[in-house]
Amino acid sequence: MESSAMRETTEIAYQLAWIAVDWGSSNLRAWGLDQHDQVVAQANSDKGMLSLKADEYETELLRLVGDWLPASGQTDVMVCGMAGARQGWLEAAYLPVPTRLDQLSQGAVTPTLRGDQLGVYLLPGLSQTRGTATHFDVMRGEETQLAGLVANTPDFSGLACLPGTHAKWATLEAGSVTQFTTYLTGELYQLLANQSVLKHSVSTPSAARNNLNDPTCREAFTSAVREINEAPELFSSRLFGLRAQDLLDGRLPAGDTRGAVLAARLSGLAIGLELTGACRKCPTDKPIMLIGNQALSQRYTLALNTIGYQTQHMDGDTAVLAGLRLAHHALK
Amino acid sequence: MESSAMRETTEIAYQLAWIAVDWGSSNLRAWGLDQHDQVVAQANSDKGMLSLKADEYETELLRLVGDWLPASGQTDVMVCGMAGARQGWLEAAYLPVPTRLDQLSQGAVTPTLRGDQLGVYLLPGLSQTRGTATHFDVMRGEETQLAGLVANTPDFSGLACLPGTHAKWATLEAGSVTQFTTYLTGELYQLLANQSVLKHSVSTPSAARNNLNDPTCREAFTSAVREINEAPELFSSRLFGLRAQDLLDGRLPAGDTRGAVLAARLSGLAIGLELTGACRKCPTDKPIMLIGNQALSQRYTLALNTIGYQTQHMDGDTAVLAGLRLAHHALK
Repeated sequence: MESSAMRETTEIAYQLAWIAVDWGSSNLRAWGLDQHDQVVAQANSDKGMLSLKADEYETELLRLVGDWLPASGQTDVMVCGMAGARQGWLEAAYLPVPTRLDQLSQGAVTPTLRGDQLGVYLLPGLSQTRGTATHFDVMRGEETQLAGLVANTPDFSGLACLPGTHAKWATLEAGSVTQFTTYLTGELYQLLANQSVLKHSVSTPSAARNNLNDPTCREAFTSAVREINEAPELFSSRLFGLRAQDLLDGRLPAGDTRGAVLAARLSGLAIGLELTGACRKCPTDKPIMLIGNQALSQRYTLALNTIGYQTQHMDGDTAVLAGLRLAHHALK
Repeated sequence: MESSAMRETTEIAYQLAWIAVDWGSSNLRAWGLDQHDQVVAQANSDKGMLSLKADEYETELLRLVGDWLPASGQTDVMVCGMAGARQGWLEAAYLPVPTRLDQLSQGAVTPTLRGDQLGVYLLPGLSQTRGTATHFDVMRGEETQLAGLVANTPDFSGLACLPGTHAKWATLEAGSVTQFTTYLTGELYQLLANQSVLKHSVSTPSAARNNLNDPTCREAFTSAVREINEAPELFSSRLFGLRAQDLLDGRLPAGDTRGAVLAARLSGLAIGLELTGACRKCPTDKPIMLIGNQALSQRYTLALNTIGYQTQHMDGDTAVLAGLRLAHHALK
């Protein structure tokens, strides 16, 4: 008699049509999809690109999804992210912009596999070279989220923003990326909050993550966005000013709230600088499309609203899956 | 028969009138001065404020200068820097600007000593509170260098810049500091070069220190200063751009020079941002007074010249000593 776990596994294998994978620097996420592109299984691991040598990827992938596979035949695996980087599984060379987002799979590479249960396709990232109005830039992983946006809205034109450690801003025209810019905002925030003189003054990131629900924190955040928007050249002075404020400002609350308020201000300074750069030629009548997790998108929406912009939002995970679906369709 | 070392020690003790000390976060420097304020002895140690508890300062000071002291009587020790910080020997509370730089000793504090060979005076730092055109800020140690500037040029009026980990810009009017601003430039550079994604691309700071002698590095530095001066809001995008340039730019030199060129560019971006903020209301017809070591002052001069400013230079050590002299005179 089959156990319910065995029955579940058998059901997945019966339904499984292909597998979608987002292989990041620090983790790996896989989705099993049926013939209607519906998710029938999901699994994660912490084996990101930084933890793996090139010859370890196949093993880790099979460890994660092996139970889903049918007894015979080959299952396609569409992979986006750092597995296709130079230091990943196999380098999928960047496609230079302008690039149609429904043609990413044209740049896919297939690593040599030891087994034959899987057919693996690593999607390329995007690059941009220096020109009259552009500068060197790269992305890897985010192009698939942008493809997901285009899968939803095939002729999307406008500005898309993917907040994160290395935030990306992309200009899309009729489904192509024409140019893009990366802002070091998230990494800058983490370095300043954890390693600089400011570490004595701002709360830890995990404590700061939800601080915008507090009105004092919210005000500190939005006023910092406004200040930097008016005078971006004062960024590095406003950073030290946080420390001085911690030492001198009798009106700051005491205890944990103090660190949260200063963290909110630091966040507003870093994000405010990014927005001032990214939006400087943007008319305010067209909303900016944010793609990412809810907390970060809400933070960016608050900042963008503060300087006069409206936003739309697409969930980051939804976008990745939709992009991998689009790439899989283009391949087949 | 006296050895020459003993004779030398005896001579110092015979000449010694007072002692000047610059007690920083990471090191301690002491000068023995005669009745004409000429240096007759000098000694350093690596016991900065970060290495000492409050009750260890007297011991360390005596260890360093004990040999200079006469057999009897009390020798004044004028101390500037972090020994007067809250986490130092004894807190010498900040004097709020505007402050006359020839009156710093009015805020000096005297720690309780176990012995009676020394009379120690810890000089205060300066603070600034938030106002219409000012923001919270603090300095500790640099005020004494500014006092040294004023000792040289009693009615100095204009802008003084002290480059460093936490660069200070001070507005002086007739010998007083009326306002000042700290820029996190040096610390920002170090964090980005050593801890961020850029660490893979830029040379180590020690290698980068003298890179401006190379024409390609010089050009990378000055063009970065110009770029940020024109568009400071692009700072966090230009940071990531360094990494992308390392990956994509076929025209970059290979090997060690590559890292040096990118380090020069990073330096230009960070310093350029500071200058854009600090000089935004400054007419170009008045030179800016740089106080600091030669290498850093030359770097700042190159950057300032690039955006249209002239500079004068006062050596940092000369300034500290002159400031401690001025403070000692005011006390006596």
